Amino acid sequence: MSQGTLLYAQSGGVTAVINATAAAVIGEARTRKIKVLAARNGILGALREELIDTSKESAAAIRALAQTPGGAFGSCRVKLKSLEADRARYERLLAVFKAHDVRWFLYNGGNDSADTALKVSQLAKAFDYPLTCIGVPKTVDNDLAVTDTCPGFGSAAKYTAVSVREAALDVAAMAETSTKVFVYEAMGRHAGWLAAAAGLAGQSPDDAPQIILFPERAYDEAAFLAQVKKVVAKVGWCVVVASEGIQHADGRFVADAGGGKDSFGHTQLGGVASYLAGRVKDQLGFKVHWTLPDYLQRSARHIASKTDWEQAQAVGKAAVQYALKGQNAVMPVIVRTSDAPYRWKIEAAPLEKVANHEKKMPNGFLRKDGYGITAAARKYLEPLIRGEAYPEFGRDGLPKYVALKNVAVKQKLPKWEG
Amino acid sequence: MSQGTLLYAQSGGVTAVINATAAAVIGEARTRKIKVLAARNGILGALREELIDTSKESAAAIRALAQTPGGAFGSCRVKLKSLEADRARYERLLAVFKAHDVRWFLYNGGNDSADTALKVSQLAKAFDYPLTCIGVPKTVDNDLAVTDTCPGFGSAAKYTAVSVREAALDVAAMAETSTKVFVYEAMGRHAGWLAAAAGLAGQSPDDAPQIILFPERAYDEAAFLAQVKKVVAKVGWCVVVASEGIQHADGRFVADAGGGKDSFGHTQLGGVASYLAGRVKDQLGFKVHWTLPDYLQRSARHIASKTDWEQAQAVGKAAVQYALKGQNAVMPVIVRTSDAPYRWKIEAAPLEKVANHEKKMPNGFLRKDGYGITAAARKYLEPLIRGEAYPEFGRDGLPKYVALKNVAVKQKLPKWEG
Repeated sequence: MSQGTLLYAQSGGVTAVINATAAAVIGEARTRKIKVLAARNGILGALREELIDTSKESAAAIRALAQTPGGAFGSCRVKLKSLEADRARYERLLAVFKAHDVRWFLYNGGNDSADTALKVSQLAKAFDYPLTCIGVPKTVDNDLAVTDTCPGFGSAAKYTAVSVREAALDVAAMAETSTKVFVYEAMGRHAGWLAAAAGLAGQSPDDAPQIILFPERAYDEAAFLAQVKKVVAKVGWCVVVASEGIQHADGRFVADAGGGKDSFGHTQLGGVASYLAGRVKDQLGFKVHWTLPDYLQRSARHIASKTDWEQAQAVGKAAVQYALKGQNAVMPVIVRTSDAPYRWKIEAAPLEKVANHEKKMPNGFLRKDGYGITAAARKYLEPLIRGEAYPEFGRDGLPKYVALKNVAVKQKLPKWEG
Repeated sequence: MSQGTLLYAQSGGVTAVINATAAAVIGEARTRKIKVLAARNGILGALREELIDTSKESAAAIRALAQTPGGAFGSCRVKLKSLEADRARYERLLAVFKAHDVRWFLYNGGNDSADTALKVSQLAKAFDYPLTCIGVPKTVDNDLAVTDTCPGFGSAAKYTAVSVREAALDVAAMAETSTKVFVYEAMGRHAGWLAAAAGLAGQSPDDAPQIILFPERAYDEAAFLAQVKKVVAKVGWCVVVASEGIQHADGRFVADAGGGKDSFGHTQLGGVASYLAGRVKDQLGFKVHWTLPDYLQRSARHIASKTDWEQAQAVGKAAVQYALKGQNAVMPVIVRTSDAPYRWKIEAAPLEKVANHEKKMPNGFLRKDGYGITAAARKYLEPLIRGEAYPEFGRDGLPKYVALKNVAVKQKLPKWEG
């Protein structure tokens, strides 16, 4: 009788350390002689029966995987609906699982993935198929419930704080005759976690970033411009960090104001930083520079947080342990047991408590004026960016990131026409 | 009789390692018991008699300076005109120099600064004032003549190659259901040196960046879009690196097509990446992401090139040595003596040969199709990004960058009304 296989899949936006989780999953399973398949492009690969045999990868490749950003098996942005609405897909998943003797399913993603893992576990139970489903946390958005933080966030947060501190030194040097205002756009559609992390770059209100714009506060243009003017008058220059998700009081996204069409009818891609920079230039007349780091902020493995990297591996290892113990429909979450010294442990949380919830930024994390973070926010955030976990670099000056062989498993089922 | 003082000033856009040059200047002068003043905000500080007494900084602060990005004394974008057109300014400079017994003037910048240093030296000679002027190279644009490379470029180049490699792994993971094209905008108005450095991220034409757009080649939109389509068809996704200075065949900057005014009459700040991303989206229908790193690329001390960092210090040290030997109107330049193993030395070059010249990218560095770099380019560029020179990080997860005390020297002259 077969021992069963473990299926691992990556979902949603990738991070600097999701592959560290993957490496830990594979490493832990190997020590327990469990075969690990990976789905190509997340749940899509499971539906399409596009599975990867991770046993073809060397131990060295798996070690290198732990220091490689991106998603080595491919990710996807596909959300399964309810069991009723998407029944055919869920049943196809079970068919693929049966065909490959999948007894453990580890889905590495955010809210939606936790929800999918939960539903698959329910369906398996209904069909009396022995399957243990584990949600494995990951997201730079830091918006998963229950867990103290989400693997991937700490590294993006460190990138953000370091980049803002560095750019601020540049602006400070240039301000007398050139750039006086610098705008940095941080990821975060619904919650300003990464924008808040930028606040770690400075200690006092006169330190950069002097102004942070959070999606948790309505964007008031007149007040914002007045604040920029005030900061430039006092400090000589101003660094603004804006969350991509900031909205006007009436709920319109500020990002939607930028962009549109140019005079040729061409799409203009704007964004928040571009918009704010334009307003500062028009209304205050200051020379302004702006940055949109976009994917750089979530793939910057070279400046990963050691705390984050360790936690990414810890949840991977725990996920395998929970799976093999048959702890169905849980997620390994990070529990903070002490702020100073910072201590944490991994615990199993029911997927029901994680799926379809969203962790908001606590009100007490934002300064009264709405333009900065509080000591409470600092106490929470600072340990998450602590420590460096540099990848190995080659003689060519570049990080040694691995490209896996990703050998396909022979298909056993008819092609999926989903 | 006074021994004389050495005046150091920073000019133009700052870099991740210009402070390493400053630290080397101060360090070398200290071992020779020479007093170093620094001008606040470059040549402006010299004109305004806003001078900083670097002897007030501790040895630890100067060591920390070597790992701090930005320009610690302030820089400026001020270009002095010819001796005839700007005579009053040049004479004011000499007056300030005399008042503070400045016998050595080290100007750390690009082409313009070399020109200013040269002119000041000519004027001093005309006035029979004993002054030795040294231009000290610095620019991420890598466009100084004579020197093999410019301190600051290697670190920005390393940032670019590493960031492109990292973002490419992200795009590759997302491409099946989401982003298929990623556009990275690199600095470089006149020459595509940083865009070329991105080419180091990949080895084969199918590796990212699959397309580089250089200002040295006319931008042909139809050909570009066809190439993106071809790459996506073959690879599944495509990373484009575009130099900010790319132009249409008729000389119009592509960046000028983006931007303009929105329907409210607000300034739209665009740029090349934003524009290209819009075209790809409109014409090919691919989901696209783009990044504008802006100042992040030139201030990213955390991913500085060790080669660059060492060269930045070497030119600083040599500048002091040349100055004290009375080698007037020269610049310490980097001479490459061997490609493999990479070897270099510092030599003195006449400022006349550097000032107002611009180093172009050799034709042989660009692939025939214009979308990538050649082996010759790789041979030149690769050693420049070699080695890591991480700054020290604190317990708070952030680099320990120093803020100097910058104690002002008492003014001796009437206020400058220039």
